[in-house]
Order: sequence, then C-alpha cells, then structure tokens
Amino acid sequence: MSLMSESELEVALRSIGAERYHNLHPFHRRLHGGKCSLAEVQAWALNRYFYQALIPQKDAYLVARLPTPALRREWRRRIVDHDGEREGEGGIARWLALTTGLGLDRELVVSARAVLPATRFAVEAYVHFCRDRSLLEAIASSLTELFSPQIIGERVEGMLKHYDFVTAETLAYFTKRPPQAAQDSAFALHYVKRNAKSEAEQRSVLAALTFKCDVLWAQLDALWHAYVEGNIPPGAFVPEPCR
Amino acid sequence: MSLMSESELEVALRSIGAERYHNLHPFHRRLHGGKCSLAEVQAWALNRYFYQALIPQKDAYLVARLPTPALRREWRRRIVDHDGEREGEGGIARWLALTTGLGLDRELVVSARAVLPATRFAVEAYVHFCRDRSLLEAIASSLTELFSPQIIGERVEGMLKHYDFVTAETLAYFTKRPPQAAQDSAFALHYVKRNAKSEAEQRSVLAALTFKCDVLWAQLDALWHAYVEGNIPPGAFVPEPCR
Repeated sequence: MSLMSESELEVALRSIGAERYHNLHPFHRRLHGGKCSLAEVQAWALNRYFYQALIPQKDAYLVARLPTPALRREWRRRIVDHDGEREGEGGIARWLALTTGLGLDRELVVSARAVLPATRFAVEAYVHFCRDRSLLEAIASSLTELFSPQIIGERVEGMLKHYDFVTAETLAYFTKRPPQAAQDSAFALHYVKRNAKSEAEQRSVLAALTFKCDVLWAQLDALWHAYVEGNIPPGAFVPEPCR
Repeated sequence: MSLMSESELEVALRSIGAERYHNLHPFHRRLHGGKCSLAEVQAWALNRYFYQALIPQKDAYLVARLPTPALRREWRRRIVDHDGEREGEGGIARWLALTTGLGLDRELVVSARAVLPATRFAVEAYVHFCRDRSLLEAIASSLTELFSPQIIGERVEGMLKHYDFVTAETLAYFTKRPPQAAQDSAFALHYVKRNAKSEAEQRSVLAALTFKCDVLWAQLDALWHAYVEGNIPPGAFVPEPCR
C-alpha cells in the first residue's frame, strides 16, 4: 500500500462498506423482507438496544480526547442525539419505544441482563476501541454511518410493509436518524481524510472501519445462530413463543 | 441470596459449571464424537489458539495486582506453563504443534488475522475483565479450570479414536494440561472461598464464573455458525475444502 490522496482514501473506505457493512448480512435481508417472526424481531431489538445504549459512552470517551471546544461541540451533538435534552427524548428513548411496542418489558431491556454474551462482547469491544486506540482510529470507526441512511430507509419501508406488530410510531428512531447520521459521517469523513496523512495512519483508518464492520456483523451472526437457528445460549432472552 | 458458607459457595460455583461449562455445547460433542471435518477441527484449533495466546496476558494483569511475593509466585507459574522456559516449550508452543499437525500455516495462526471477530471480542473481553474488575472477580473467572480435566480426558480419547489426522504427539498440549489445571483451580477455589466474605462479594464471584462460561460458550457458538453452518464472516479463515 502506498500513500493515498484524500479521494483515494475515501474510495478505499467506501469499498470496505460495500464489502462488509451489515446490510449484506442475511439477517438484515430477513428482517427487511418480512421473514422474521415476532420473536426474532424482539430478539433483534433487545440486543440492538444494548448497542444503542453504549453509543453515548463511546462518544463521551471520544469527546474526552478531542483537543478543542469546536471539535468537542461537534462530537457532543452525538451524545445529545442519543440521550436527549430531557427524560423521554433522544435516540435511546426512541429505541425503548420500539422495544415496548414489540411487547418487551422495559426493565428487561434496560437491565441488559438477557442480552446475548456475543452482543455484549462485540459492543464493549467497540467502546474500548474508542477509549484506547488513537483519536484518528476512534473517529474512523464511526464511519459505518456513511452507509446507514440507505439501510435505514430500506428497513422502515420493509418493516412497515411486512409486520403488523410494527407502526410508524414505534419506528420513530429510524425516521429521526438518517439526517443525523449524514451530518455526523460527513464530519468524520472530512476529519479522517484531512488527518490520515501517513501510510501507517491510512492503514489504521481502514483497519478501524473494518473492525467496526466486524462489530456489527458479529451481532447479526449471534442473532441468527441463537434465534433463527434456535441455539439460544444459557441465560439469554427466551421469546414467549419459545417458552 | 443470603451469605453462604465456604462449602455452600463451592456448591454454587460447581453448579454454574454443571449448567454452563462448554462441555455441554454441541460443538464439543461433535468434536469429541468424531463428527467434525478436518476443516472444522482446523477452524477450532486456529480460533482457540487466539484464546491460548492471550491467557498469559490476562495472567500477567492478575500477577500485577497480587499484593505478596507468595501470591505472585503462585500465579506466575501459570505464565510459565503457557510461555515455557525457552523457545519451543510451554502450552502455546504445544498448541502450535497441534495447529501445524492439522496442516495450518504457522504464520497464519500466530498472526491471528483469520480469527473470527466473535472469538476476538470474547477473548479480549476476558483479558479486560481480569485487568479491570476486582482481584477477587479476576481470580474467580479462572475457575472454569475446575471443570477442564474431565473435558480434556474426553477430548484426547475421542480425537485419537476418531480422527486419523490427529496423533498423540500433536495432542501434547492436552496431556500436559490436566495436572496444571487441577493445581491452579485448587488454589483459586481456596482463595475465592476464603476471600468472598460478604454477600456482594459472593455474588460477584458467581457472576465472574458465569461471565467466563459465556466467554467459552460464545466462542463455540461462533465456530458452529461459521464452520458447521457455513456462514463464514468476511475476512475470517476459509478452510481449503471450502475454497
């Protein structure tokens, strides 16, 4: 690998998404295509809640390491988006509206005690990555959001069409998210292109995005194994129809 | 839960193993029962190498936090067991003899670049647990070794009987391991029983062993999904017969 221009680096980043982003995972096709049972959608939402709930933690680790008020303000917006300005607002509250709409007990979801261990390990790996790796790598790992507006569009349309247990109201998380993700990822992409100036830095940036794709993919692999194939590990969520 | 006596605590710990230790996982029955293909045994050995390779790191974090020379000497023995006294000795070298005996490229194994992301996340969660949690929890998380001598006996017998690509020589890791595991776990069990004196400590000890069982179980879930079901995630090891 030799030093890339900014636009070559962007092409390389986008090609990682084209090959590894979790819109390519069979669980996503199953979810959007209306093939999931209620139990599978519940398991997806309950596990994904754990991911959503830890996003502000990883963002706070990132804010803690940004050197200027302007950069910290820019990144702080992400925490506000997820945590809201007051009780009941923000992305996490909207995700809880989804899990509640799907019939899941709020305390069960918030406690995270029934989350798949594989979900926990993957999500915590992401938080630790943003705490422990270089600032450049931490920012680059957020770039999966470059690819999320499209998948969210497909998801909302597919889920509303196929599932009578899903309403536009319970999907409020997803209708709010695409403009935020577009703004966030535009900033992060600009930062990464400007600051990855050596071959080693560019390699680290590509590896960070690959790592993040692995974090998302591993969560869907675990969901599939546990809830589509029916191999629920000890202690994890058991949907009503399986009891 | 109320305060338990030392022997009640031991019973509670052993019952976690009886319910959650990975000898109960279908992949183990498949491996020992001669139902795995060479490709599956290769994938198991390559992924499990990553676990073996990080054990001395977690033990070093633990040694770093032990307060007396006597305790550190006791735990240091585990690092020696894995890393050996000189090149080519120790448990990690013996594990490499297994992967090489199975036809895997040594550099591929040692680089860990083809390890399943789910393996990586689970193993690193274990290392971080031993670095970040209380000393009591870190020691308790090693107690899965209470249950390993039996599983290793079954494994050696089953693998030698069923697989012509496995020899007693390549299984040297397992013949050395049971007396070490028995000595190690006897010490750790004694320490935990003596030092978990409050209800909160006893709860933390049980949770630590449950966590560690999850770490082992999640690795076999990921192997099954990738190599028995054939859903190999992007970037992970692709066995020859699948290429």
